[in-house]
Amino acid sequence: MRAIVLDSTLRMCASYPDPVPHDGDVLVRVLCAGICETDLQLIRGYMAFRGVLGHEFVGIAETGPFAGRRVVGEINCSCGACPTCRKGFLTHCPHRTTLGIANRDGAFADRLILPQRNLHLVPDSLPTDVAVFTEPVAAAFQIPAQISVHRADRIIVLGDGRLGNLCAQVLAPLAHDVLVIGKHDEKLALLKSLGIRTARVNVVEPGHQADIVVDCTGSETGLPAALELVRPRGTIVLKTTVSGRQTLAWALFVIDEVTLVGSRCGPFDEALAALESGRIVVQPLISARFSLDCGVEAIECARTRPVLKVLLDVGSA
Amino acid sequence: MRAIVLDSTLRMCASYPDPVPHDGDVLVRVLCAGICETDLQLIRGYMAFRGVLGHEFVGIAETGPFAGRRVVGEINCSCGACPTCRKGFLTHCPHRTTLGIANRDGAFADRLILPQRNLHLVPDSLPTDVAVFTEPVAAAFQIPAQISVHRADRIIVLGDGRLGNLCAQVLAPLAHDVLVIGKHDEKLALLKSLGIRTARVNVVEPGHQADIVVDCTGSETGLPAALELVRPRGTIVLKTTVSGRQTLAWALFVIDEVTLVGSRCGPFDEALAALESGRIVVQPLISARFSLDCGVEAIECARTRPVLKVLLDVGSA
Repeated sequence: MRAIVLDSTLRMCASYPDPVPHDGDVLVRVLCAGICETDLQLIRGYMAFRGVLGHEFVGIAETGPFAGRRVVGEINCSCGACPTCRKGFLTHCPHRTTLGIANRDGAFADRLILPQRNLHLVPDSLPTDVAVFTEPVAAAFQIPAQISVHRADRIIVLGDGRLGNLCAQVLAPLAHDVLVIGKHDEKLALLKSLGIRTARVNVVEPGHQADIVVDCTGSETGLPAALELVRPRGTIVLKTTVSGRQTLAWALFVIDEVTLVGSRCGPFDEALAALESGRIVVQPLISARFSLDCGVEAIECARTRPVLKVLLDVGSA
Repeated sequence: MRAIVLDSTLRMCASYPDPVPHDGDVLVRVLCAGICETDLQLIRGYMAFRGVLGHEFVGIAETGPFAGRRVVGEINCSCGACPTCRKGFLTHCPHRTTLGIANRDGAFADRLILPQRNLHLVPDSLPTDVAVFTEPVAAAFQIPAQISVHRADRIIVLGDGRLGNLCAQVLAPLAHDVLVIGKHDEKLALLKSLGIRTARVNVVEPGHQADIVVDCTGSETGLPAALELVRPRGTIVLKTTVSGRQTLAWALFVIDEVTLVGSRCGPFDEALAALESGRIVVQPLISARFSLDCGVEAIECARTRPVLKVLLDVGSA
């Protein structure tokens, strides 16, 4: 099958071996996949991943109870038996593999396999190029799943990219004052058209005013900036994962008694419901579409241009 | 007056100018002061502090409604008028000075001044060399003031020093499983004699098992070690403040969805009540006592020897 493979280099492989399902696995024929900031970080060396990239997808289940229907899939494949899984923290199973991120080939390919329990049916009314946003929208919904958000909270989202946009859309109905700080006029204009307040990063004075700051910059500059913006006893939600080690004066967390919450994958059910209801708007985020054959070029486009979401069209329903 | 002064060097000054009280200030004659890890960090350059060191003390109020009585004092002097103060976050006032830490001369001196509202009367039954622990005991009580501790929680305190000991004593009655990890046989033995489970750092396997890890190491090795010990979705309480900038893979907070809580000064009322009831035991922590005249030697002792608390006897009641 065709696949975008990361090993010593990033390349299109026309004859990658088909994935082999084991017990409980479902073979999924991929229709559409999304390129995420994490994919770009993996290419820079994050997680030392080797294999087929991609973890945002819509496909058609070829086996199992959903056979013939469109599905999206949670990306963490857990053992279900260890103490962490038994406590319900399935996304944190120490034995997990993660689609296109850790020890499991991903979605930038004609076919992938995932355990049946990871799959969610896509509602018939939901276009494939909307449903392909389920995974990042779920990641945004993880924020209110982890921290209490109050209507009076002043929230700043750092980063006007894909994830920053979705986090702002999830948080905007929960608090009166949500501000996205970014660098790109077009991306900020899109947020503004969705009714969300925006500011360019160069006009914001560090004021220690925000109750909550969400770092979606995808850059090691995000956390230090968040510490300048959050109020004493405020909360920083860290969404950014960058490769390597970063430098910071940790004493700042103590002096201002700031809480930092690492935040990763979220609830697919809520994401699908929000997409179906139209409460979260994603189609304006699609900047470009490429066929899987041009996958390397698609990733290059996502890496070098000020795009929002780049999609890969893999197959047809 | 006599004072231990930090400027280009650390020195005993026999003729430091007496502090001049302003409106609302109380002149306090110092009886006893404690040397804290923060004092040692200030000497290493933390906060770029210049002036009289010292923030843990018992003294006799010479003016104001408590005149003639023993007092301890909260160290943050706030404006009381700014938005942060009006929200009740007095210890985070952006205009604050901090006794012996920031823009205010401290307690390693014959006299100090503090606002009346910072002072607490010492109960008559409480010996001066117990009451001098009020400030660090309050800092330990800040932990349950900031985070929920459940009886079933597995808690690890990193560091068997002064603050680690007090944090463990505060947390031990709140959870079944409190373990202090340290490097010093004598300090661990003292904790054991107080009924607290201990382990030497070299025999602990990093297991990602603890629900809560409290970093009291006073070292930049503490936070990376805490990340090895805390479970996914667990909480790290950061008490350590070290000078300069430190390096860490911040992605670990995201991958394991760990919460980091910076924790600083705490409630004096609770600390005084716990000391008065005997629930927190502090006198075995006194490793050495020096007169103020030998203050520089006392600090040298606290800096270089495996001591717990070093006290300075400044005056007599």
